[in-house]
Amino acid sequence: MTPAQTHPADRLLSAIDAVGSPVCVGLDPVLEKLPSSLAGKSAATAIAAFGCGICQAITGIIPCVKIQSACYERFGPEGIRALDETLAAARACGLVTILDGKRGDIGISAEHYAAAMFGQNRAEWATVNGYLGMDGVTPFLARGGAFVLVRTSNPGSDALQSRATSSGETIAEAIADLVSKTGKSSMGQRGFSALGAVVGATKSGEAAALRARMPEQIFLVPGFGAQGGTVADVLPCFRHDGSGAIITASRSVIFPTGSGGADWISPIQRAAESFAREVRDGIHGAQNANSTCA
Amino acid sequence: MTPAQTHPADRLLSAIDAVGSPVCVGLDPVLEKLPSSLAGKSAATAIAAFGCGICQAITGIIPCVKIQSACYERFGPEGIRALDETLAAARACGLVTILDGKRGDIGISAEHYAAAMFGQNRAEWATVNGYLGMDGVTPFLARGGAFVLVRTSNPGSDALQSRATSSGETIAEAIADLVSKTGKSSMGQRGFSALGAVVGATKSGEAAALRARMPEQIFLVPGFGAQGGTVADVLPCFRHDGSGAIITASRSVIFPTGSGGADWISPIQRAAESFAREVRDGIHGAQNANSTCA
Repeated sequence: MTPAQTHPADRLLSAIDAVGSPVCVGLDPVLEKLPSSLAGKSAATAIAAFGCGICQAITGIIPCVKIQSACYERFGPEGIRALDETLAAARACGLVTILDGKRGDIGISAEHYAAAMFGQNRAEWATVNGYLGMDGVTPFLARGGAFVLVRTSNPGSDALQSRATSSGETIAEAIADLVSKTGKSSMGQRGFSALGAVVGATKSGEAAALRARMPEQIFLVPGFGAQGGTVADVLPCFRHDGSGAIITASRSVIFPTGSGGADWISPIQRAAESFAREVRDGIHGAQNANSTCA
Repeated sequence: MTPAQTHPADRLLSAIDAVGSPVCVGLDPVLEKLPSSLAGKSAATAIAAFGCGICQAITGIIPCVKIQSACYERFGPEGIRALDETLAAARACGLVTILDGKRGDIGISAEHYAAAMFGQNRAEWATVNGYLGMDGVTPFLARGGAFVLVRTSNPGSDALQSRATSSGETIAEAIADLVSKTGKSSMGQRGFSALGAVVGATKSGEAAALRARMPEQIFLVPGFGAQGGTVADVLPCFRHDGSGAIITASRSVIFPTGSGGADWISPIQRAAESFAREVRDGIHGAQNANSTCA
């Protein structure tokens, strides 16, 4: 991050304020599910057109897109070109961009990955795997924001992430402590770090403890909607003032019922509006309940 | 992996037998260090020419290349094209190909990554991050071999990987147990699984315990040479019969002293020969010492 840039956390929080809902759409394009009107194009051209159309459709409703790198990488150089086009479209729309690549390597290779994720006008945030340690995470902070995988939403994650260490906390909590400490050197103006955390929506029972361990991290919360997470599940990811988390839905927004035909944009727009409203209302409801109790 | 293909572990072990040394060269091309005769080309063209030259230079000496994806990804679509050219050159030389991308994601995204790593005649093996759990690892085994990061060579890894769990083993050992169990469904003819493990050469104190927990895993052992690992350090990664590990050196082979000029191939060839001999002699010496003791 150069001094002239806005801090990634401040920029993300401002974008959330502008639309009034802390939500993110996950762009995970799968060729077989694309609208029929995109058939006949090459795979890379079709997923680029799909992603660019979604960015335009959700602008003003959703502040942020999380782009799943795997869906583009599988199409080789042309897939990377489609990814670049999609990132450019998202930026042109003013959306905050998160490149979901879950990279993680030792120092010098992490620097190459940071260059790949953030260089050449690419993303503002990236997801990062912290298993190799924080020396594999800090190179990302020199160029942008990074969400470290702390607690993921998939069933197989429990076997490792929820195991206890000898001092009693879980392995996910041990990573949370490393993230909290490392993030202190990259604080923005609004009380949040450029080092955030991924905490899955389906792990709501663990979210409050993780929030307490990481008060200065923005939580990126995938797994809402199609993966099973509800508004009640994600509320513990927020601070008491309703800030500090961004809820991500992918399939339920980008592949809604009725989106397979010629007008595939309108169903996606309606799904995005419904998703943004559901999360906003859920947070307001919880805050009203809190203030009544107090 | 289709039934017609050779099992990835069998193929790797046969390639090691053919040259007589269990070694691997890490291709981590860095633009600033390339030979001066490659100057003036585009970044992607230069790293492709460098990688293809190295593959030809080491053929017959070294059985295997590990290609660091980050070094190519940072150059966008053209970098991926350079990666594809390098993988094609390695295959044409008969080298076993390991794509070091350290990917890791939940099931469906892991399938996309597996398609990216192994599809379109790409690599035979990939490195994978298992922090998300084994449901993010198994999709790779349907198409090729996977080395899961168990114990990495970087200093920052200790803070997490060598911490004890409540049942006494380290977190790295907990992952090792998951890898050992998951790998049983993908065994080759020669007693090793298509699911291997990354165990850094600088963590020799922990290697014997990891070998005991993962008897059927091939260990990919980075960190030899420039990163500080010695032959004595890597011996505990092998089974007693001298099989089951592949030692990787990167910078000490691809950027040897005197390799900056017009004839950059010869110094690399000499460095590869010296590296292969050092590891071979070290293993034979240890086996002779064992047989004398017995």
